[in-house]
Amino acid sequence: MNVLLTGAYGRCGTAIIDHLHDEPDYDFTYLDLEDPDDGAEYGSYDTVVADVADAAAVQNAATDQDAMIHLAGYPFTDGTWDDVHQPNIIGTLNALEAARTQELETVVFASTNHVMGMYESENAPDLYLGSEAPFQLSHEDPVRPDSYYGVSKSFGEDLCRYYVENYEYPKRAHAIRICSVRMPEYDHPYGDAESGVEAGDYERGSVEYEQQVARMKAMWQSRRDFAHMIDRCLQTDDPGFDIYSGVSDNDRRWYSIENARETIDYDPQDNGETWDSPPE
Amino acid sequence: MNVLLTGAYGRCGTAIIDHLHDEPDYDFTYLDLEDPDDGAEYGSYDTVVADVADAAAVQNAATDQDAMIHLAGYPFTDGTWDDVHQPNIIGTLNALEAARTQELETVVFASTNHVMGMYESENAPDLYLGSEAPFQLSHEDPVRPDSYYGVSKSFGEDLCRYYVENYEYPKRAHAIRICSVRMPEYDHPYGDAESGVEAGDYERGSVEYEQQVARMKAMWQSRRDFAHMIDRCLQTDDPGFDIYSGVSDNDRRWYSIENARETIDYDPQDNGETWDSPPE
Repeated sequence: MNVLLTGAYGRCGTAIIDHLHDEPDYDFTYLDLEDPDDGAEYGSYDTVVADVADAAAVQNAATDQDAMIHLAGYPFTDGTWDDVHQPNIIGTLNALEAARTQELETVVFASTNHVMGMYESENAPDLYLGSEAPFQLSHEDPVRPDSYYGVSKSFGEDLCRYYVENYEYPKRAHAIRICSVRMPEYDHPYGDAESGVEAGDYERGSVEYEQQVARMKAMWQSRRDFAHMIDRCLQTDDPGFDIYSGVSDNDRRWYSIENARETIDYDPQDNGETWDSPPE
Repeated sequence: MNVLLTGAYGRCGTAIIDHLHDEPDYDFTYLDLEDPDDGAEYGSYDTVVADVADAAAVQNAATDQDAMIHLAGYPFTDGTWDDVHQPNIIGTLNALEAARTQELETVVFASTNHVMGMYESENAPDLYLGSEAPFQLSHEDPVRPDSYYGVSKSFGEDLCRYYVENYEYPKRAHAIRICSVRMPEYDHPYGDAESGVEAGDYERGSVEYEQQVARMKAMWQSRRDFAHMIDRCLQTDDPGFDIYSGVSDNDRRWYSIENARETIDYDPQDNGETWDSPPE
């Protein structure tokens, strides 16, 4: 299976590379704004240096592919409309147009929990602190975006569904509402409070730090669970569009993984609760 | 109440003008791409000639308004991405940005049944022919757009919700999934088969004509019922975002009007079923 991976060198793309690069089923082409090391680190696969807002470049990269994992886009909730318009709105249109015209069977679309972010905002911080969340958000609940970023990803979900239901290609599209995939050095619910990069800018032991850790125990999707979910999406033959929560089997999660379990046999290995202290 | 009505001279805008223009509660400003008769037909209200894709023009028109009824946009399912991108995506962004910065209390957004159009497509034509529809689509069902137009209106709904839930203004936004509002001369479920303009290009008495009439008996929203729904939206003080089906009290409808009845006291007067033959 020839697979185009856009946004290959970000947080989520590298999780796919780390876990699926050597799978014999897949022959990857990586696409990103830059090629971090001229492809050396990730072996023999091609890297296309392109902006997904460039329709012709995406069409070109999609030629002879069977599937596309579309992760490229502006990824933060602080984004203005101008930040998300070209990368997320136009970029996703270009991805789906390329899938349609180049006759790709499968699209996997990186959506986000921020499509549903207001359910969290209006219940935080109490939502974080119980051992089990008071509700489970499913793929059928109405969207409530918390940012232009969230709106742009909701648009991407709608566009995926429209293409699958109205055109011959893609045959299927899977939208994953990714909760929190982290870089390898922080692949756990605890951040590095000193660096402030991953866990927020909170002092260890403070109330805010404990809330943040509790939130991450609910939201974390381990890199291997994320890559496994991608693999399950690529291995499914059923036609149609569906939405899954991208989250590990966390006791505290408020994003339901039932649809992913039932539809694509998602079988996560990790649970944020098993981390009762930061790693050494 | 100062009310800006965008897309004032289209099918839906003129229904509002016909029924609410003389209501003492409202002081309208009309906005459209053209002023059909320099304002003469519609009396003393100002008409702003502007394109909603022009952010500055929308900001300017929104100054000193209390509410905006945002109907302007590309209105047909045949629209390409380029047809809907500026009028519907950017135009609705401009409308909501103007509501936020000019501190408008209320936005009423013209959405469409085509946000949910695939539920119809996959059940047509059987859906049209029973005396009662086998399902009722609510504001809480997942969207399934049937066109770029439908996707663009789903985006508009999401953006309305995002603004209401994240900014001080607008305080409330109502999205109406308008089913079928018609020009005054066709304000009934029967079209003019000879002109082919309204009822489709089907010969009277043909199967296709009967299906089309049956569909319109389900989808019709009379001009007075539409204007009444707009009035109810403007008269509601509750904050927040909600979605209503824009349809009359038709026996055959598959768009539920329960949420509109409960939330804004929508009380439609018309029912497509009362038309058992074309008007003389």
